[in-house]
Amino acid sequence: MREVAIIGIGMNKWGELWEKSLRDVFTEAALEAIKDSGVDHIDSMYVGCMSSGLFVDQEHLASLLADYLGVTPIPSARVESACASGGLAVRMGFLDVASGMSDIVLVGGVEKMTDVSVDGATFALSTAADQEYEVYQGITFPGLYAMMARAHMHKYGTTREQLAQVAVKNHYHGSMNPLAQFPQRITVDNVVKSVMVADPLRILDCSPITDGAAAVILCSLDLAKNISKKPLIKIIGSGHATDTIALHSRNDLTELRATQRAAEKAYKMANKKPEDIDLVEVHDCFTIAEICVIEALGFVEKGRGGKATEDGMTKLGGKIPVNTSGGLKSKGHPVGATGVAQVVEIVKQLRGEAGERQVKNAKVGMTQNMGGSGGSTLVHIMEVV
Amino acid sequence: MREVAIIGIGMNKWGELWEKSLRDVFTEAALEAIKDSGVDHIDSMYVGCMSSGLFVDQEHLASLLADYLGVTPIPSARVESACASGGLAVRMGFLDVASGMSDIVLVGGVEKMTDVSVDGATFALSTAADQEYEVYQGITFPGLYAMMARAHMHKYGTTREQLAQVAVKNHYHGSMNPLAQFPQRITVDNVVKSVMVADPLRILDCSPITDGAAAVILCSLDLAKNISKKPLIKIIGSGHATDTIALHSRNDLTELRATQRAAEKAYKMANKKPEDIDLVEVHDCFTIAEICVIEALGFVEKGRGGKATEDGMTKLGGKIPVNTSGGLKSKGHPVGATGVAQVVEIVKQLRGEAGERQVKNAKVGMTQNMGGSGGSTLVHIMEVV
Repeated sequence: MREVAIIGIGMNKWGELWEKSLRDVFTEAALEAIKDSGVDHIDSMYVGCMSSGLFVDQEHLASLLADYLGVTPIPSARVESACASGGLAVRMGFLDVASGMSDIVLVGGVEKMTDVSVDGATFALSTAADQEYEVYQGITFPGLYAMMARAHMHKYGTTREQLAQVAVKNHYHGSMNPLAQFPQRITVDNVVKSVMVADPLRILDCSPITDGAAAVILCSLDLAKNISKKPLIKIIGSGHATDTIALHSRNDLTELRATQRAAEKAYKMANKKPEDIDLVEVHDCFTIAEICVIEALGFVEKGRGGKATEDGMTKLGGKIPVNTSGGLKSKGHPVGATGVAQVVEIVKQLRGEAGERQVKNAKVGMTQNMGGSGGSTLVHIMEVV
Repeated sequence: MREVAIIGIGMNKWGELWEKSLRDVFTEAALEAIKDSGVDHIDSMYVGCMSSGLFVDQEHLASLLADYLGVTPIPSARVESACASGGLAVRMGFLDVASGMSDIVLVGGVEKMTDVSVDGATFALSTAADQEYEVYQGITFPGLYAMMARAHMHKYGTTREQLAQVAVKNHYHGSMNPLAQFPQRITVDNVVKSVMVADPLRILDCSPITDGAAAVILCSLDLAKNISKKPLIKIIGSGHATDTIALHSRNDLTELRATQRAAEKAYKMANKKPEDIDLVEVHDCFTIAEICVIEALGFVEKGRGGKATEDGMTKLGGKIPVNTSGGLKSKGHPVGATGVAQVVEIVKQLRGEAGERQVKNAKVGMTQNMGGSGGSTLVHIMEVV
């Protein structure tokens, strides 16, 4: 396998972008990544998108975007793994370069979620769960994650306030990210008094509906040395794993086995341990998700995710800063774009370009991007060359 | 890049499979491919599917299918390129093995198209065209291909009867394929007197709406030699290219540039020329498509596709048999499965397992799988080791 570097990043301001179509949203981020990288062409591209079919009536998305970007006839592939579609696109781009098939690859993620009603968006998102055995019975994602939260509270004594601390921390981080959709700082009191969605989860426990895109340029490491003038960031680990798509099929509702397994593979490939990681972007689609994820990644003992958050371990300046970008909670969650945006944040941090939210001496970063209630997970580890 | 062999194939009887859900349809083909290959495990899987979101309200498809197949926690990725999703899955599986990431990979394609109304299916398929610039103006795929047919007739004198000959030939081939959806033999008279869909294309010029799946097992060539007892088939060329998604953006409506470009790449990688190919499966979604495709692949001079078909060049026993499986026209066209089923047919032929439709002394075969009106194309070349 060839070594693969990330030499360009791009992301637009996320939010309710009613004045832009999906193709415009994507192209903004893609052009910024191309410009940032210094490349004069790309050999192929990958697009992570969960459901352009249900959100904007458009499939065949990768060809449409290659066309609009003006890069036909290069290969362009859309990949989907629900909310982990972006992370999957990163892995496919990585394999394309690692295999020797392509030298320079654009990896983008995009979702345009506000062109449908809120009901329409909730329905489209629900297609990440098992339609026949979960959704047709009436459950959607807030309900699934609420059950995970209840189980975690029951089994480990995790408190309502600890859940809230995840949101408070991520909005604090997001307040320093000019591209975040909801950069407002919030308090524990704000969270626990916000509108109930699915007990115990309230609206401020939930990531929002967002339009947005993110893109990165991958390049063989040898070639990257001749092209890029910025610090080179190498992808040293890639892990991908699946779990039962339906929550009810799992032995333990609080355990994210796909995340555990993907992390094991990525750690092994990178020859790293949790204590070697300087910062991590994780999939905090709901506050409980971040708690379960940091346990599954090995940063805290099982059951201690809530307490660790309360103690400030995961805050900027803490032992392992989690979601310095603001995470899905504050930055926004255009589902197909999220996994790519996580990589954008890690590259910014490892390059030392993260401004007031910069993690000091960050050398090794990780991303964890998850589909559905944890039915799929992508983990990547990156290091400054 | 490591060398990659195909060691297992599976496909079910295609048709209107109302008694089976998408997961059942897929799993039948996948289990058959696993059994055929002799492997005792798989390392990862890829699923080509155009729009399970619009057809059956289900995204996150690759995790669902890995779960139902009982192979979690292995990586499982869905890829989409409209009707070329199956071919794209083959390429992604190829890259996975070629890169060294995985040794044994299941590549499947599936579509369940009959759980929606005919209008619903037509709409879902239309999302392969440019929604904002084509579909919202009222056009769907029969209309797009009808314009290509009119242009070809005008420019090259292609006749109504020559279009019909494509359908007649493919139904003749399909009559020898027990898995085909419409194995009935038909005549030129049947075609030219069938119901008009979009002038000049009539219902018997169009591929049908189909439920079905196909699967193959890819394996590193070195490992394959220890596992498989059947003739080993090697993937020696893989080409992937894009073109404008909208038909109106092209200089020449009769030219399939993505197919030309993908074929160039595949020929170069395989070190083969058109005259080295013993048989080919092409994307005959409409009769005119096959005519344009055999020109773009270099089997006949530009404009001579209709005449060559009329002269029997592409029929079993002719110079270059095209669509011995029956093609999309007779075998059926569950859009995400088609590209994988094309590979299944080539492997059958190269193994000498094609029964009464066997091409004698077939050593090198090709597949061409196309999305939309030609906005994306995948070409693969396979050879007996």
